[in-house]
Amino acid sequence: MRIHVQNPAGESQFAVTEAQWSAALSRNPDMTGLEVSFASDEEGLTQALPEAEVLLSWVRPLRQRFPAGALPGAAPRLKVIACTSAGVDSAAPFEWLPDSVALLNNRGTHADKAGEFGIMAILMLQTRMPAFADQQRRGEWKPLFASTLEGRRVVIVGLGSLGGGVARRARQFGMRVIGVRNGPEPHPDCDETHATEALDTVLPRAEFLVLACPLTERTRGLLSRERIALLPPGARVVNIARGAVWDQDAICDALEAGHLEGCVTDVAVPEPLPADHRLWRTPGMVVTPHVSADDHARYNDRTLDILFENIRAMRAGRPMPNRVDPVKGY
Amino acid sequence: MRIHVQNPAGESQFAVTEAQWSAALSRNPDMTGLEVSFASDEEGLTQALPEAEVLLSWVRPLRQRFPAGALPGAAPRLKVIACTSAGVDSAAPFEWLPDSVALLNNRGTHADKAGEFGIMAILMLQTRMPAFADQQRRGEWKPLFASTLEGRRVVIVGLGSLGGGVARRARQFGMRVIGVRNGPEPHPDCDETHATEALDTVLPRAEFLVLACPLTERTRGLLSRERIALLPPGARVVNIARGAVWDQDAICDALEAGHLEGCVTDVAVPEPLPADHRLWRTPGMVVTPHVSADDHARYNDRTLDILFENIRAMRAGRPMPNRVDPVKGY
Repeated sequence: MRIHVQNPAGESQFAVTEAQWSAALSRNPDMTGLEVSFASDEEGLTQALPEAEVLLSWVRPLRQRFPAGALPGAAPRLKVIACTSAGVDSAAPFEWLPDSVALLNNRGTHADKAGEFGIMAILMLQTRMPAFADQQRRGEWKPLFASTLEGRRVVIVGLGSLGGGVARRARQFGMRVIGVRNGPEPHPDCDETHATEALDTVLPRAEFLVLACPLTERTRGLLSRERIALLPPGARVVNIARGAVWDQDAICDALEAGHLEGCVTDVAVPEPLPADHRLWRTPGMVVTPHVSADDHARYNDRTLDILFENIRAMRAGRPMPNRVDPVKGY
Repeated sequence: MRIHVQNPAGESQFAVTEAQWSAALSRNPDMTGLEVSFASDEEGLTQALPEAEVLLSWVRPLRQRFPAGALPGAAPRLKVIACTSAGVDSAAPFEWLPDSVALLNNRGTHADKAGEFGIMAILMLQTRMPAFADQQRRGEWKPLFASTLEGRRVVIVGLGSLGGGVARRARQFGMRVIGVRNGPEPHPDCDETHATEALDTVLPRAEFLVLACPLTERTRGLLSRERIALLPPGARVVNIARGAVWDQDAICDALEAGHLEGCVTDVAVPEPLPADHRLWRTPGMVVTPHVSADDHARYNDRTLDILFENIRAMRAGRPMPNRVDPVKGY
């Protein structure tokens, strides 16, 4: 089986290396019969495509590189495109993707890191770190006390790797975890789960709200101005999903009006956020530059383990666990 | 048994109330035969002292109120002084305390809250939040990635309530926890423990260092300039002990020189910290105003439970678990 690894051009620190490949093979000794090639330029990709059966690639170039109808001619043997990111929204819509090619996301690489980021954000908001950061800027020593997280309610929208990772940590701190996802089926780290349709009935109970869903046409603008108003006064919001999942201006307005007490966001519209954007300066807002789920030291190793797990499934005739449904978008 | 509760003057939000007292009695139904009085002024204290057998008081007024030799005359029946704070350093030295009076600290009220603050601080430093706070001030979107806490080493100095609470959380995140305390006996949440005398051999291994010991004559200046130099380059330090436990200026110097990557301190010399103090503006330093261990919503309830636990021990002729050794200072 021929596998081509297309690394991002000019960002060699993210590249999957031959050494990481070899190490992954030693961890997965059943992965025999694989021939691999590596490239980070257009020429390397063009050379590899005619023979490649599996393409491991970062997600951005896919849509541009393959206009609708182009892929079968360029890569006649291709069966699998594995993306190195968990979110594949930047490759949507998927009219360029033939039915014969399975698109895999990289779900599973991010759970631990996102769980740590999420609980850090919750702890910071509970401890009132945004207010203390303001005070530090002014040189003001004014204690504001806060209780522990035990028994407090957190609503987590999206229970994939990111949301699931946060739910697990929140449970360790004794929080009451309310999950919201497409269906109402239970989740091992949630005290309750609700379908997205029930979101409006859940929001008034959210002392903390964590957005951790993929960006799809269904979730774009999900936390609208009207829904922000449904949150209880003093609620705190964490966004590790995508900036387009909430109404960013309405969030800033709600912080300025004092309806929300604080926010931590790792995402923004646009990214990178321009220096003069109001998000940077909204009181109670903590902005981090899209780092909540990426663990570079361990990322590529997990990426390859996930790829091999999917190849293993394909060889055994089982469904590939990371296959994206192009209609759902994740 | 006559118990007098002396609340802090002019800070009624911290006062132990009669309602909290009644609730504590219902939780501890064996606590019969107690007569209680409450005051927050000097007159109320003077009135209560001649008959009081137990005095529950905040720690600050004790030394001033009772010069050496004064206590037996003012409070001839007094057997116990219970302090509402865990650290009793502000009442030291204890030449004012007769051997016939047991001094209790409030150890045990702070473990959960301190554990949450400690792991929040570690997560913030790991995630590089001090750098992101700088970037937010400048409106700069520049990702800096970090791995998870798993397998990273944290040295915790002091394994009382505060340090023990942090150790428990650090273990939940898969950290390797190295405890330092007076003796080398093991601690259930530490992978290793070492005596304070071995501190210099432990510091070079500290990716994270958490100061959580009481301030005593032995720990004053414990993290000296020389010991800061023993920390590995890029080390991160959290201080939830007292500002006098580290050399505050040497810490600022080490951050400015880039030897340390970041610090979170909840304590300072002096407190409150003046607006023009360098600590506020040292790069990589996060300052919070002495809030790491105080959980006001639950504090007085725990204080009374701890007091009753000690009275129970005294009545049964057992050692009181919170009794301070005036020579050790904690």
